[in-house]
Amino acid sequence: MTLRVGVIGGGQLARMMIPPAIELGIDIRVLAEAEGMSASIAATAVGDYTDLETVLSFARGVDVVTFDHEHVPQAVLQGLVAAGVAVHPGPDALQYAQDKLLMRARLASLGVPVPSWASVADSADLDAFIDAHGGRAVVKTARGGYDGKGVRVVSSAAQVADWFGDDPLLAEELVDFKRELSQLVARRPSGDVTLWPVVESIQRDGVCAEVLAPAPGGSPRLAAVAAQIGTTIAESLGVTGVLAVELFETLDERILVNELAMRPHNTGHWTIDGSTTSQFEQHLRAVLDLPFGATGHTAPWSVMVNILGGPASGDLDTPLRAAAAAQPTAKLHLYGKPPRPGRKIGHVTVSGDDLATVAYEARAAAAAFDS
Amino acid sequence: MTLRVGVIGGGQLARMMIPPAIELGIDIRVLAEAEGMSASIAATAVGDYTDLETVLSFARGVDVVTFDHEHVPQAVLQGLVAAGVAVHPGPDALQYAQDKLLMRARLASLGVPVPSWASVADSADLDAFIDAHGGRAVVKTARGGYDGKGVRVVSSAAQVADWFGDDPLLAEELVDFKRELSQLVARRPSGDVTLWPVVESIQRDGVCAEVLAPAPGGSPRLAAVAAQIGTTIAESLGVTGVLAVELFETLDERILVNELAMRPHNTGHWTIDGSTTSQFEQHLRAVLDLPFGATGHTAPWSVMVNILGGPASGDLDTPLRAAAAAQPTAKLHLYGKPPRPGRKIGHVTVSGDDLATVAYEARAAAAAFDS
Repeated sequence: MTLRVGVIGGGQLARMMIPPAIELGIDIRVLAEAEGMSASIAATAVGDYTDLETVLSFARGVDVVTFDHEHVPQAVLQGLVAAGVAVHPGPDALQYAQDKLLMRARLASLGVPVPSWASVADSADLDAFIDAHGGRAVVKTARGGYDGKGVRVVSSAAQVADWFGDDPLLAEELVDFKRELSQLVARRPSGDVTLWPVVESIQRDGVCAEVLAPAPGGSPRLAAVAAQIGTTIAESLGVTGVLAVELFETLDERILVNELAMRPHNTGHWTIDGSTTSQFEQHLRAVLDLPFGATGHTAPWSVMVNILGGPASGDLDTPLRAAAAAQPTAKLHLYGKPPRPGRKIGHVTVSGDDLATVAYEARAAAAAFDS
Repeated sequence: MTLRVGVIGGGQLARMMIPPAIELGIDIRVLAEAEGMSASIAATAVGDYTDLETVLSFARGVDVVTFDHEHVPQAVLQGLVAAGVAVHPGPDALQYAQDKLLMRARLASLGVPVPSWASVADSADLDAFIDAHGGRAVVKTARGGYDGKGVRVVSSAAQVADWFGDDPLLAEELVDFKRELSQLVARRPSGDVTLWPVVESIQRDGVCAEVLAPAPGGSPRLAAVAAQIGTTIAESLGVTGVLAVELFETLDERILVNELAMRPHNTGHWTIDGSTTSQFEQHLRAVLDLPFGATGHTAPWSVMVNILGGPASGDLDTPLRAAAAAQPTAKLHLYGKPPRPGRKIGHVTVSGDDLATVAYEARAAAAAFDS
């Protein structure tokens, strides 16, 4: 009788699905890559998500399979579907999150605004693209990139010589943007779509550092355009679950789609503390085809700051205590991961009436973990 | 390195400690009474909490032991302390939650306002008390009562003839109250005390049905008196963790202490969704002696409605779907317990600007489970 959700992958996104699953009375089970991962409290199996038999065996105990990440191979996804397993998002949608060239081509065909781009098979192709776009370009591997990996800004094809091989690369114009935004969407299998307010994300070294929610100075037009883009993509690609659409706001006030993620996303972590329904609860509702919860923000402003790296000592108790002592309003989230330079090991969200105050408090609490 | 909290008892209060433990990166472990209890996702042991060896073995893996309930025998509590285990709240404090006669005597000695009361050993004592208090009295067993059990309103000692035995009973005046209130407090071993806003609780058949937070029409004087009472009790009794002080507000505007609970309490469930820091997170911080989080309410009003009994069919999916569809603002909490008449199987909280609206929405969502 109890609704059962199986999550493939034991990282922090699976971990953050556990609290709302407990609240809603959902039996959540995780197929973890290894022992001791972030979501291990809910791990009912440890195994290789690229092995169909492993995944099928895990899936037999649940009503629906969803994901901590987008890396499950298409062959495994299709094997699950062929075996009658409910998979959300499904393989047809996930292919666009797994292949950036496929995604760019599909978005272009939908008329969704994207940066100038090309599929480049060799150095000559790329150098031609660079020449045509002011002498610089962003080059991305079509598969496997995240958090700044698989992305380089180059002025010559020679700078990605090591990436050329059998697969073409994605070349994009280097967009002259004012800021980066994110539109978080959720869609149910039965078709209902819901959106959170568009937020501003601040990246450092290709990694999300902070999110300001809602995006400061956001106009009704901006909100409408972002919502239209998010809804179009979710519906056209048949996304089920949470979809994050990362956007550029250009100096001339255009909105361009940068990246997609078909899962709960770092730019939505603020919703745990700052929205009536968090992206993690909504993702569970979506994949179970339960009616959506309200997505309004519960305070005028929320600021989310990532905890990156953590203390060199490896000791998290001391900064936890310091952050709690100094910032009683800070909602502290740790992912159960050992500190390591650059690694996302947690985040902090503060919500309140004054943007400057909540930003200060969130940054101060996160900074306690930098020592 | 990771902070480890052990909870004795696998009920819904232990269950509701799990989400904040996950968020704070705390390793939470539960000693459950049986398989398949509410908090089973965190159960690392199943055993008898009245057996010292069982409890000691469980306690060896954690930094501090705390509780889902107040029923662990003093001998076991003292055995833990003697073995060097950190126990919060400790046996000296818990004895007052375990014995209502002891509690009444201690509160009276502290000068905390309480209803008229007496320890009655036999029918003659009780009939004398009834005669002296207008022909009626509330009679309680000193130990083991909860949710209306072990409490009777009587006009003659004959009505509790079955309760007289070796142990005296507690007789109390039947207070002519305007409403019931609850003051939730948390105290750390190092002495820091924090309080949430005083709330109104509405009881039906001796069981909490609804909580309105904060208490409507509450004056600064009311808040100050309730805070003073809560702080005095927490400090004088050496409570560590969350303490709930249930209060009567009388027709002549006095505040009297009705009951104490030394653990997270039903009248504090609204804090999960309506306060910056929930009672469950604060309890974890308290027992680990971590600095407290802020306790303000995040919306002007929150209303919590218990889901009592649940559908006769035993099917919770249908009402969950109905409640989600009709009340998108409702925060739905299910405890993983099969429906049974009168049983607390979950609760709903709605927060917002207008008390009548949030009360309507919370009641409507909870009512979906009545069918």
